[in-house]
Amino acid sequence: MKAEIKGNILNPLPVALVGALVNGKPNYLVIGYISPFNFGKHVFFSLFKKRYTTVGIHENMTFSVNIPSISLLQETKLCGSKSGRDYDKTSLFDTFFGDLKTAPMIRECPLNMECEVEQIIDYDLNEGIIGKVVKSYADSNTVFDGKLDIRKVQPIIWATCGDFNYYNIGARVDE
Amino acid sequence: MKAEIKGNILNPLPVALVGALVNGKPNYLVIGYISPFNFGKHVFFSLFKKRYTTVGIHENMTFSVNIPSISLLQETKLCGSKSGRDYDKTSLFDTFFGDLKTAPMIRECPLNMECEVEQIIDYDLNEGIIGKVVKSYADSNTVFDGKLDIRKVQPIIWATCGDFNYYNIGARVDE
Repeated sequence: MKAEIKGNILNPLPVALVGALVNGKPNYLVIGYISPFNFGKHVFFSLFKKRYTTVGIHENMTFSVNIPSISLLQETKLCGSKSGRDYDKTSLFDTFFGDLKTAPMIRECPLNMECEVEQIIDYDLNEGIIGKVVKSYADSNTVFDGKLDIRKVQPIIWATCGDFNYYNIGARVDE
Repeated sequence: MKAEIKGNILNPLPVALVGALVNGKPNYLVIGYISPFNFGKHVFFSLFKKRYTTVGIHENMTFSVNIPSISLLQETKLCGSKSGRDYDKTSLFDTFFGDLKTAPMIRECPLNMECEVEQIIDYDLNEGIIGKVVKSYADSNTVFDGKLDIRKVQPIIWATCGDFNYYNIGARVDE
């Protein structure tokens, strides 16, 4: 039996931390609406314009994407609840840089990606940010023969439409 | 220890079936690069231009998003491996329509959304499709007090960067 439900039913979604250099300091924001694009050569995410991170992304036209493990849930929640305007997130994580010197990445996150902004799409109170992937990094204990084992990452996934809980990744379907 | 890894590390990702009316018949395509956008009022996905579905989306400027359960894995894989050019997917599912008469939805999928195309972004061999959410639907056994319980949906999630396996959703983190 089908019934109308309010909202966007696309579920479940990966949790990512987007990093940017804002006023010279690394800042990290939780993003739930994010997707690879164009064979994975790009990434797209939805950014609320009022976020502090927006300033840094517009200034440097670079950002990072970092995938936190469940063990970083508290830090992740903190990045989602406190603005860089009021709270210095520099000390929350060990920051490293790759080729881009303005796309801070989080060492504690097992997966990282540095990106250059290629296009900004203006939508009401949000922007769609399209970034070109410059380079991706993984903790060596999550990669076997050059292939990722997502179970080693222990990523956080979450649900929309009123569920709003965080979940672990489950078993492989074919195992 | 960090090492470079090839590809887009954004993981894991939801599996969705995008529906469109192509040459008058419902067609369904697996999309792995998809995200809500703009507070969830919109949806964004990456569409390989050569897909048969592209014809229908351009013609009608409407589409649907359908979230399959693990129990629909075989049908989902079939939608990802066979083109509507060679294989009539009409009989795979029971199709229903909502407000839009050109956005076919899959009754067997517990979550559905009908959308109007608002913008098409041209990127090499792919398009970024931005759709406005017109209405969302859920099977009543997945909703409690108006709130979704994603565990009842039993969605399929998958991993990139060489993992390429399908996974179940796991336990709630806070339980």
